[in-house]
Amino acid sequence: MTEPDPNADPFAERKARAAAWFAELQATICAAFERLEETQRHGPHAALAPGRFERRATRREPAPGEDGGGGVMAIMRQGRLFEKVGVNVSTVHGRLDARARQSLTARRDIPGLAEDPRFWAAGISLVAHMRSPKVPAVHMNTRMFWTPAAWWFGGGADLNPMVELAEDTAFFHDRLRAACDAHDPGYYPRFKAWADEYFMIRHRGEPRGVGGIFYDDLCTGDWEADFAFTRDVGRAFLEAWLPIVERHRDEPWTEEERAWQLIRRGRYAEFNLVYDRGTRFGLETGHNVEAVLMSLPPLAAWP
Amino acid sequence: MTEPDPNADPFAERKARAAAWFAELQATICAAFERLEETQRHGPHAALAPGRFERRATRREPAPGEDGGGGVMAIMRQGRLFEKVGVNVSTVHGRLDARARQSLTARRDIPGLAEDPRFWAAGISLVAHMRSPKVPAVHMNTRMFWTPAAWWFGGGADLNPMVELAEDTAFFHDRLRAACDAHDPGYYPRFKAWADEYFMIRHRGEPRGVGGIFYDDLCTGDWEADFAFTRDVGRAFLEAWLPIVERHRDEPWTEEERAWQLIRRGRYAEFNLVYDRGTRFGLETGHNVEAVLMSLPPLAAWP
Repeated sequence: MTEPDPNADPFAERKARAAAWFAELQATICAAFERLEETQRHGPHAALAPGRFERRATRREPAPGEDGGGGVMAIMRQGRLFEKVGVNVSTVHGRLDARARQSLTARRDIPGLAEDPRFWAAGISLVAHMRSPKVPAVHMNTRMFWTPAAWWFGGGADLNPMVELAEDTAFFHDRLRAACDAHDPGYYPRFKAWADEYFMIRHRGEPRGVGGIFYDDLCTGDWEADFAFTRDVGRAFLEAWLPIVERHRDEPWTEEERAWQLIRRGRYAEFNLVYDRGTRFGLETGHNVEAVLMSLPPLAAWP
Repeated sequence: MTEPDPNADPFAERKARAAAWFAELQATICAAFERLEETQRHGPHAALAPGRFERRATRREPAPGEDGGGGVMAIMRQGRLFEKVGVNVSTVHGRLDARARQSLTARRDIPGLAEDPRFWAAGISLVAHMRSPKVPAVHMNTRMFWTPAAWWFGGGADLNPMVELAEDTAFFHDRLRAACDAHDPGYYPRFKAWADEYFMIRHRGEPRGVGGIFYDDLCTGDWEADFAFTRDVGRAFLEAWLPIVERHRDEPWTEEERAWQLIRRGRYAEFNLVYDRGTRFGLETGHNVEAVLMSLPPLAAWP
């Protein structure tokens, strides 16, 4: 009988499964978005070749030459429907320096991190900026975080229409609510309220979009259950957003609507650069800056 | 003989003179820029009416209905030469809450502020985004800050060409150096190095432009001397930038140069939203958000 290796990471298998899930979700989403491109027959960009994702490896270098993990950035640009969309996965590890620790511990004290600053994190992050001002921009992100003394999941999704349509808002929230309710009836009310608080452009006193869900520090103690919930959030995102795209993809738009879209995108950039925790964490932990900032809009206006 | 009022603010006259200077400089600059518009005869926008500044009062409301001072925002948009330029002055006062104090004390401990958090500040801030990618964008800002136990001046100017021309960089720096040297031969080397450090987009490891000068916490003990220096920085800005505009205003440009300009402007927005101390201070102390963010480019790209 072989003794188990006392130095083995008891979380190694779970980390591998989480990272594999994020990669699978990336593949599923990229395929779904490329299908949208192929089937786009109307509108001012229908004559273009359907957009295709370009994939590129990214690296986190905490110090020059040091390995901190990395990821795969998938970006599609100037398609028929998508003006710019990034779907990034990453699996990173190393030690959290004081500054990065601060951007985490602003919200929570991570037990034991001062003594042992090792961390591991994997996740997927998606932002889609559309050609049409009739099709909402959207964001989704889920992640698993591990430190020697704790693990947790986080994530969310939010819808960013240029002009709110109550029907779309209700549909998007309903799909996310269904995914939440299947796990815990308390999740949706809590995570919806958290999104309303989180996706707020505080210096303007205005929300960046019409919300969705946001959760962090999710650790019920049952890793399998929390991982299953995080998978369901990823799936629910597609169920929530794709029908909204179908509903609006062939609607015409005006120059005025386009101009307003560019202003809304400016607000989006403000939120991400000033407040977004994932962006700040990425910039502070030395991940490939193009991957961290892929969320920024292809074109934005502050007229 | 009248006894002096023991409650009178011994700094009242100085505050008034500083505020008046910033207003005068605003008027001088706005007039100079409108002259540039009137005399612009070539290029794709020469057929437009010459741009004119619109002036609007701004208010700082630390809490709803509370008076925290205000200013005058002067903005010119979609001119022949200027795509968007803001020249704002403000005179604000009140109490620094903990968050705003932090964005100041990150660099210095302000003596006595924890016990008596009153402050007063006046300044001018200018950012010009040009139609032509051949004409550098530019920024200038000077200010006086007062607290019960301290006063100081700060400011600077930096040049942001889309492609560096060594001749322009040298000229811009020479004018600022001359203004500095007239006051203290140590100023220019120190304030140039400070600008190189300050105007750095740290997450990209690249400077936002070709520098200039930056100074803060300037208090030699001689208020008249420090005020005179700050006035000279304002004058030197015009001497440094206007000839560069003259040199390039009639040069043609290509679509590729315009596209690169929009990318450079995206970098500029990144710097201002992530790092700029004036922007952060403004957003945190509740000043009119349109005035604080007038520095953001009319159009920017992250392709």
